[in-house]
Amino acid sequence: MTPEATLARLREYMVGPSRFMNLLSCFELGLVDTLRENPGMTAAKLGDAVGAKPDAVEQLLHLLVKEGFVAYDEGSGGYSLAALAGVAKADLQRALTYMNMIKVVALRQLFYLTDSVRTGTLVGLRELYGAEGTLYGAVAEHRDLREAWATLMDTVTARIDPWFFGNIDIPSGAQVLDLAGNTGLGAIHAYRSKASPGLRVTTFDLPEKEDDCLRNFRDHGVAEHCSFIGGDVFEGIPEGFDVVLIKHFLDMFDRDDVFAILEGVNRSLKVGGQVHIMVPVYPENIADTDNYNVDFFPAFFIGCTMGQGGPQKLSTYQRWLEECGFTVTKTITKASAEIPPDVIPVQAILCATKTA
Amino acid sequence: MTPEATLARLREYMVGPSRFMNLLSCFELGLVDTLRENPGMTAAKLGDAVGAKPDAVEQLLHLLVKEGFVAYDEGSGGYSLAALAGVAKADLQRALTYMNMIKVVALRQLFYLTDSVRTGTLVGLRELYGAEGTLYGAVAEHRDLREAWATLMDTVTARIDPWFFGNIDIPSGAQVLDLAGNTGLGAIHAYRSKASPGLRVTTFDLPEKEDDCLRNFRDHGVAEHCSFIGGDVFEGIPEGFDVVLIKHFLDMFDRDDVFAILEGVNRSLKVGGQVHIMVPVYPENIADTDNYNVDFFPAFFIGCTMGQGGPQKLSTYQRWLEECGFTVTKTITKASAEIPPDVIPVQAILCATKTA
Repeated sequence: MTPEATLARLREYMVGPSRFMNLLSCFELGLVDTLRENPGMTAAKLGDAVGAKPDAVEQLLHLLVKEGFVAYDEGSGGYSLAALAGVAKADLQRALTYMNMIKVVALRQLFYLTDSVRTGTLVGLRELYGAEGTLYGAVAEHRDLREAWATLMDTVTARIDPWFFGNIDIPSGAQVLDLAGNTGLGAIHAYRSKASPGLRVTTFDLPEKEDDCLRNFRDHGVAEHCSFIGGDVFEGIPEGFDVVLIKHFLDMFDRDDVFAILEGVNRSLKVGGQVHIMVPVYPENIADTDNYNVDFFPAFFIGCTMGQGGPQKLSTYQRWLEECGFTVTKTITKASAEIPPDVIPVQAILCATKTA
Repeated sequence: MTPEATLARLREYMVGPSRFMNLLSCFELGLVDTLRENPGMTAAKLGDAVGAKPDAVEQLLHLLVKEGFVAYDEGSGGYSLAALAGVAKADLQRALTYMNMIKVVALRQLFYLTDSVRTGTLVGLRELYGAEGTLYGAVAEHRDLREAWATLMDTVTARIDPWFFGNIDIPSGAQVLDLAGNTGLGAIHAYRSKASPGLRVTTFDLPEKEDDCLRNFRDHGVAEHCSFIGGDVFEGIPEGFDVVLIKHFLDMFDRDDVFAILEGVNRSLKVGGQVHIMVPVYPENIADTDNYNVDFFPAFFIGCTMGQGGPQKLSTYQRWLEECGFTVTKTITKASAEIPPDVIPVQAILCATKTA
């Protein structure tokens, strides 16, 4: 890479924040929806329609014209959707849900990334919201964070859980523990995907989740087959289960805590007990350009959600599992071709059996 | 552009903020400087050296390895500079000055872009700093904004003023007005570049700039040839000048205000009087990928510095000058090849003569 190419790449990085917010703002203002309904509108008419000055509308739409997202007709001064017209509504909505989450949960918070790295705490969350602890605590107190975050997580879970449950085996009648299972959605999916006589799925999470979790079980008609146990993963994992699920969790922690979790799970299981993990993974060759986890998760976990953590390579998780007394029986990484092109996380499944 | 390509492009936008801050944080933490002095350090040693957890160091360096900025040796676990080693120190410093300005002046503020567009005010500056008005007022009160902004502007001015003065003619002994000339740096450059018997350069800006400006004139030994007039561009421009310079100014305003400025300058001049303008310009074909003004300035001016404004195409400025009673005699756009590849602004010069 020449010095010139390196400097040019730095410029790409420099325009990252402004590009992101310029584009999202065109959606937030309603410019894209307005143009979808009324192609050919001028900046003056668009400005009237969305309550903004035509000068600002024209300025912000330049980028969308540059990208080919929107077309501009010099003769009439009218704008219309170009590439954006061809994107299915559900696809665009999925991308916008992610963009909104990044805006609310990350954009301002990232300013404090260096201080977060130095302190291992979420300096941005403290400065902007007065919140101590992690994002997962702050979402309970702050509606804007909660809405941006929960809307995304529902979208992600709906998309990814069928893939997870389609790729793991749960023996008939097994006793299943969903580790850090939040308010029970994973347990509900697990029961529905894997129903068998005697199958029972237990959500394990902080005691304050119990009421919401049990209500969810009732609302989804699975209260007979699902239960809740309150506790803290780092203080002891309930025993007596055949299978432990660990979804969207290991990537939140640094190595020592991942070991504490895996060793705790190992202690809680009998030999032969199984663990099924779903976690985003970095590519084995970190320079792989198809995988965007590296471009997003380090800054996101350390600066915006946990003050630590971040995914690992599949081979690293595999090694760590073996070091914690498991034999890995199956690994699958979701293929790029199966992931919509706007979706950042590349997920993997690791299945393992307790051998020691 | 296919829907898939469009969605993939949205993903590029999504990782813009995290990429930006991840990279900048590696510089802020001192990881790059430490590796320059001690190639081959592991994450553990780097963490010790910069006061961060090795886990976080490893997470943040993944992106730099992906980009080829830094190399990682699997065998030793050591990092060393790759592409970053080849970039001249002054070039890297210029890029980092710009990145720091974007971080301090724009990153958090951009969150409020949509509200800024709707209100025509700097909502981010108000929310984050309690500041009313523009960035140019806020820099006087807030040291972090001032340092980030002033350091950048000094870098930019030092680079671009020689090009500007090398491309304009100022008649011997002319009386020159530097419109919105801040604290006199432009006047000093003008006098030094164009010195001739009787040449006098007058900085015109808000009265509160007078003391700093006159001190600068004295410090640079040009007090005999330079003066200051206090006032407001929109309330009347001093008469009796042969040449008016308008640098880094027209791009801060929407069309109506640009017209007010150009008409005011026109009124202040005699027929034959000249105006020399330097301003960033959008490419005539907005989709030109070599020009990054579109990717940066709309969101930056509207959301972070002025609550309005943004550059125009050269042809637009030319037309506006003609509509305000000038004949354009010369235009030059700085060639991409002459601009370091990390530099965002593409500047142009317009020279014009009052004809009506």
